[in-house]
Amino acid sequence: MKPIDKPHFKAKKSELDLEQHIILTYFFESQTDPEEAALNLCQEQSTAQWKRVGVDEDFRPRHGAKLLNLEILEVKDQPFFQSSFNKGPKFYNCKATIAHPHINFGPKIPNMLTTILGEGVFYVPGITAIKLMNIDFPETFLKNFQGPQFGLEGIRNLLAVHDRPLFFGVIKPNVGLAPKDFAALAYESWLGGLDVPKDDEMMADASYSTLAERTKLLGELRKKAEAITGEKKFFLANITDEVDKIQINHDIAVANGVNAIMLNATATGLSAARALRKTSKVPMVGHFAGMTAFTHIPFFGVSSRVWVKLQRLAGFDSILFPGFNPRMRTTEEEVLRNVHACLEPLGNLKPALPLVGGSDWAGTLPSLYKKIGSIDFGVVSGRGISNHPGGPRSGARSLRQAWEAIQKNISLEEYAKTRLELQQALEAFGN
Amino acid sequence: MKPIDKPHFKAKKSELDLEQHIILTYFFESQTDPEEAALNLCQEQSTAQWKRVGVDEDFRPRHGAKLLNLEILEVKDQPFFQSSFNKGPKFYNCKATIAHPHINFGPKIPNMLTTILGEGVFYVPGITAIKLMNIDFPETFLKNFQGPQFGLEGIRNLLAVHDRPLFFGVIKPNVGLAPKDFAALAYESWLGGLDVPKDDEMMADASYSTLAERTKLLGELRKKAEAITGEKKFFLANITDEVDKIQINHDIAVANGVNAIMLNATATGLSAARALRKTSKVPMVGHFAGMTAFTHIPFFGVSSRVWVKLQRLAGFDSILFPGFNPRMRTTEEEVLRNVHACLEPLGNLKPALPLVGGSDWAGTLPSLYKKIGSIDFGVVSGRGISNHPGGPRSGARSLRQAWEAIQKNISLEEYAKTRLELQQALEAFGN
Repeated sequence: MKPIDKPHFKAKKSELDLEQHIILTYFFESQTDPEEAALNLCQEQSTAQWKRVGVDEDFRPRHGAKLLNLEILEVKDQPFFQSSFNKGPKFYNCKATIAHPHINFGPKIPNMLTTILGEGVFYVPGITAIKLMNIDFPETFLKNFQGPQFGLEGIRNLLAVHDRPLFFGVIKPNVGLAPKDFAALAYESWLGGLDVPKDDEMMADASYSTLAERTKLLGELRKKAEAITGEKKFFLANITDEVDKIQINHDIAVANGVNAIMLNATATGLSAARALRKTSKVPMVGHFAGMTAFTHIPFFGVSSRVWVKLQRLAGFDSILFPGFNPRMRTTEEEVLRNVHACLEPLGNLKPALPLVGGSDWAGTLPSLYKKIGSIDFGVVSGRGISNHPGGPRSGARSLRQAWEAIQKNISLEEYAKTRLELQQALEAFGN
Repeated sequence: MKPIDKPHFKAKKSELDLEQHIILTYFFESQTDPEEAALNLCQEQSTAQWKRVGVDEDFRPRHGAKLLNLEILEVKDQPFFQSSFNKGPKFYNCKATIAHPHINFGPKIPNMLTTILGEGVFYVPGITAIKLMNIDFPETFLKNFQGPQFGLEGIRNLLAVHDRPLFFGVIKPNVGLAPKDFAALAYESWLGGLDVPKDDEMMADASYSTLAERTKLLGELRKKAEAITGEKKFFLANITDEVDKIQINHDIAVANGVNAIMLNATATGLSAARALRKTSKVPMVGHFAGMTAFTHIPFFGVSSRVWVKLQRLAGFDSILFPGFNPRMRTTEEEVLRNVHACLEPLGNLKPALPLVGGSDWAGTLPSLYKKIGSIDFGVVSGRGISNHPGGPRSGARSLRQAWEAIQKNISLEEYAKTRLELQQALEAFGN
């Protein structure tokens, strides 16, 4: 970049109309002068060429992305990953804050993604690795998004549960079960005290278990379980499918008495969720399947925090992401950032219910509760429910018993002395 | 995994009905015994739990993914990336070939992605990094997909060009131009000999340049350019938008006389492209914006080859991916694999036109042609057209002149002595 062009891709916050910009935070690694790399990043993601040949004009004031701040975090001799294109000799880890005028894409998720995570971000001269860590949106932009229809409070109201975390369980075996057998497991788990048994992310409208047949049984059994337990219940049906089938699946599930739906929104596209939000009659839950391919590497891709925020924008009432269990290979800090991204103020958009998932069970509930520090979350237990030695009814009971122990401030081991299902869970899953 | 369970996640090809399986090739890094890690990968991506508690049944024969082959490529002391979860002491780079029964997801892109790139792939015990390198599909599965409607030959027929590469150009400035000014640049490029001027991936239905207004001008000018040049022309309009706007945008563009559409299918979701394919009246071009976040890292995510194949399945007639220019940081091998993925046999699906993009211009055409080794590609030139010192008409001419030189087996430098626009291009862009 020529020295004369550099000031056109820099600004102070006070010089900008912040309502007209989204604020992007990138971590990047460069093998050239960090400031030049950061300014190239601004140029490439906005007005790469800002005038026509032979015309006296300049689109940068209105359309150019502007560097607000740059920090050099570390200077290294080795790149984040080896490649014939990463020559050095030095590599600079940097944090750049950029104001991007949203007129360039408008309030449209696919067009925004094209800009903030597209060719103009991943092929910037000098930059050898880059990750979008955060986005902040002005009210002017947010007001175009519906956000959650029910949100945390709406889900609590529908379930009439206000004083504890919500208990979700994944029906397993996750693939292969006939609808009748599948529905029977969900029914058992409701009777044991689960709030929300759910389809696995891999179980949707399958040839051997159609959504229509499965949800018909589940809708009926849900009402029966509610009558018996005196508690409100959800079944969470996975309606993930080709985009022109999602609305159809929603309508089938809801007509059959299923009262919450799940979408693997990375696999369908976030935009499909936003479209469904306009007509959905029930709470929408977003599953993280597919996200990890671009969120997990420390210095490349997108942070899961950004992906959670975008799902809230798209209209999910509840968002599932990897939890604290070491199997999920996610730092405590990252999990808590995602919890916060569900709950923190975001224009007029409602808070979403954070769902932490991955190898949780009765025995992990105390540390889960302690780490999150509030009751505003859902725990998603898979094998802890379905693989409990007493079956899913006992699995669900063990979760509720673990919560009772927490409320009474008694250790699980102590409480298990008088609670069979908790005792069985500790024996089966405790180390 | 218990020793008794291991044989249930292994098979020889000869033991399987290959028409019922897709074949997945993963590179992975493990910090535990590679075979156990590979078998865990099979288990987690299919029947993580294969029976109900207290029921004598086994879903693995029908639903379990099976390890066909495992190679240990390298044993290392350091992981691919540093993380508190990557403890070693040794790290094994492996290549695993897995047969996955497609009954688990059916011929649905989002459900397949959930399975082959979801939680069951990225959170496997022992595996510290993983990348899906390739997929092969049986005819039984492919027959559910329409694939390209026009494909390479259909596009050549529509343009009546059978004896050379196709010349695409991106209108720049990519953002900011008013429709009238934008359309004038496209018109100039047609007159200079471009086949397909196109919207930048960031230019879609913008508030300052609506798709309706822009395509109306472009549709009219295209017909005028065809009349003047005696050549068939495309304008390639970017209809990327929220999924419930894509069909509407297609209809507007086509009604206005625009005769090819582009979709940033990673940003919209591949499924949105497959839905549009059912009704599209014109060739569909897929842009790679957004893909790099998960394809670029050597040992994590998905290969661009898989993403190109999936776009062909979804129905794109032409697929754009990063080309050979060093700015695109893509190895020659990767570019050529993607060219091949467009053209190679894939059931009854038509070949797609490969489009290589990124900093190409007249001067790179000889090496581009030599590397690809055939005329069956499109070159996409951005600044090489729009930033040519003589404007886009001259930019387009310089491309056509470069092709004439190649045909005559004359060096560009020699040919430029009698061709002004090529000479100007070499002066402006040649180092």
